[in-house]
Amino acid sequence: MDERVREHAEILVDWSARVEAGDDVVVSVGPDAHELAVAVAEKLGERGANPLLTYSSGEVRRAYLRAHDGAFDDDPDHERALVENADVYLSLGGARNTSATADVPGETRQAYRRSRDGVREARFDTRWVSTVHPTRALAQSAGMAYAEYRDFAYDAIIRDWESLAEEMARMKDIIDGGREVRLVSPGTDLTMSIEGRTAVNSAASVAYDSHNLPSGEVFTAPHGTDGEVTFDVPMTIDGESVRDVRLEFEDGEVTDYEATEGEAVIGEVLETDDGARRLGELGIGMNRGIDRYTDNILFDEKMGETVHLALGRAYDACLPDGETGNESAVHVDLITDMSEASSLEVDGEVVGRNGRFRWEDGFDG
Amino acid sequence: MDERVREHAEILVDWSARVEAGDDVVVSVGPDAHELAVAVAEKLGERGANPLLTYSSGEVRRAYLRAHDGAFDDDPDHERALVENADVYLSLGGARNTSATADVPGETRQAYRRSRDGVREARFDTRWVSTVHPTRALAQSAGMAYAEYRDFAYDAIIRDWESLAEEMARMKDIIDGGREVRLVSPGTDLTMSIEGRTAVNSAASVAYDSHNLPSGEVFTAPHGTDGEVTFDVPMTIDGESVRDVRLEFEDGEVTDYEATEGEAVIGEVLETDDGARRLGELGIGMNRGIDRYTDNILFDEKMGETVHLALGRAYDACLPDGETGNESAVHVDLITDMSEASSLEVDGEVVGRNGRFRWEDGFDG
Repeated sequence: MDERVREHAEILVDWSARVEAGDDVVVSVGPDAHELAVAVAEKLGERGANPLLTYSSGEVRRAYLRAHDGAFDDDPDHERALVENADVYLSLGGARNTSATADVPGETRQAYRRSRDGVREARFDTRWVSTVHPTRALAQSAGMAYAEYRDFAYDAIIRDWESLAEEMARMKDIIDGGREVRLVSPGTDLTMSIEGRTAVNSAASVAYDSHNLPSGEVFTAPHGTDGEVTFDVPMTIDGESVRDVRLEFEDGEVTDYEATEGEAVIGEVLETDDGARRLGELGIGMNRGIDRYTDNILFDEKMGETVHLALGRAYDACLPDGETGNESAVHVDLITDMSEASSLEVDGEVVGRNGRFRWEDGFDG
Repeated sequence: MDERVREHAEILVDWSARVEAGDDVVVSVGPDAHELAVAVAEKLGERGANPLLTYSSGEVRRAYLRAHDGAFDDDPDHERALVENADVYLSLGGARNTSATADVPGETRQAYRRSRDGVREARFDTRWVSTVHPTRALAQSAGMAYAEYRDFAYDAIIRDWESLAEEMARMKDIIDGGREVRLVSPGTDLTMSIEGRTAVNSAASVAYDSHNLPSGEVFTAPHGTDGEVTFDVPMTIDGESVRDVRLEFEDGEVTDYEATEGEAVIGEVLETDDGARRLGELGIGMNRGIDRYTDNILFDEKMGETVHLALGRAYDACLPDGETGNESAVHVDLITDMSEASSLEVDGEVVGRNGRFRWEDGFDG
């Protein structure tokens, strides 16, 4: 076994999920994430935790969804009970084919997603962390050789997370103290309120309210969005390629949308529920270790010199205690490049321009 | 996909587990059982059932068990809750290496097994069925080519189960009406009481109290075993090869044991708990479709012209209502060839001799 698989597992279990003896842990294993599952099981054994492994396969999901009549039972008891009784939920993505569910009708996907609202809420109540094992399918998606992709992935995952957390704290302070964010870029001029919202210093650990490994972003839950935004970083959503999505917002809601590719899937996302037409997240990618787009949201949204917005669900950590933010069965991220002709303003003050933050060399305020 | 994979899934879901709309189904998937998992998911989708897939990997288990200090938590809440809330539990074996846990110390395996007593009881309260997807590792275990092994497995699985059930009913009637069974064979002269016990006509369906696919045996729960027995069909137990096990019984308990190979693993089994030293099962293999030993208990114990005995747990279906039979964390089957110099007697009457039953051509009473 590549020693980096073990390092990955150790960061996941100790730094990210803070697993302790006696924790009941669900480990969701993608079809090609077997090796990471072995390393995680070893680490959970050392810690004296109790793993229960689930199998998360796109091909299995596709077969089930296509055969079903679409009237899904809500939150089946066994699935809900498993998650409600878990302390920790580790998701080890490991796709064998990133387009495995491409021919499942969008409305079926949405209906299934809605039927699992309770399970999803229960998962968000655990110390949940999503990570990914570098697979050949992911390498292919990224347009990279397998060995090259493994280097890329482990460079992003195996880091000094504490020192990145310190750097990201600067951005969090600015967001926490701000009232309005404005994004300007080719095809983008968008304002949104961040008043009363808290930013998350997403340092790949539940101790930072951060649930992705790798991470490396500062995000919050905006509201009252107005203007237009163009997402020029390509994406795959529900197995379909999506390019140059343009959204128009008025009073916080999407009023118009278009895309040069994948417009239909964006339409399906927007129709999931009311919350799917509002933003649940503004995220600022600050992980300069991730230096290229690889068609994988877990990495792409953390990329330095990008900003992303998510349609749908907001994370509780960004909201005042007890307040409910935007609710939705979806959380779909879209990314825009901020490296050229771009600025990020907070309360009228330029915090980032052309990919540089104001505390960095080369910043041109 | 080989059309037989779909037929296998259909028999499993409809004939074996009697799945209906709304059933909450746990599907345990072996690392190389992916294809069968896809076919089962499709069938569960058609039926409107709710699958939750778990991942059952020997390598994962090995890594966990070896890393753990051995003081396992009893029946973790999340695992127990999952199974207690399931209507159906389908186990799709699909080993990648049948010796994957060979270097886990026996005492660790036993401690882990004991720690999951409650989970196991909960599973036995569901409509549970164990089957196996033919994998390369299983073909290798059987000493067969992969394509040859698939033919073997599907010939055993895809059958006219109703007509086999009718034939097996004859044997069940004899056992149900009998008081004592005597087995005679080279190295074997064993008597056991079957008074008050019911035989199961194991026709690969929960409707027959039968939980294996393939099946094709009639079994009951004997007690008060006396004499000696030699198991001349080879086995693999907990990843270790076991040959020519000889057990001596007195008043129902094993008083001595030896084996030409794997004696240590038999010793470990016997030490699991008190019930591990008593028999939980007498089974008569009646599936003549299974015509050879393949080092897989699911098939071997159903083989025509064999008898098997299990150390450990008895199945409730063989016992009077409300009565508890032999209890144990283990259920370890051992098989003996009855094709030559052998007889099976019930209350002094020869029911089978040299592999033929008394209703068959060639029976020499």
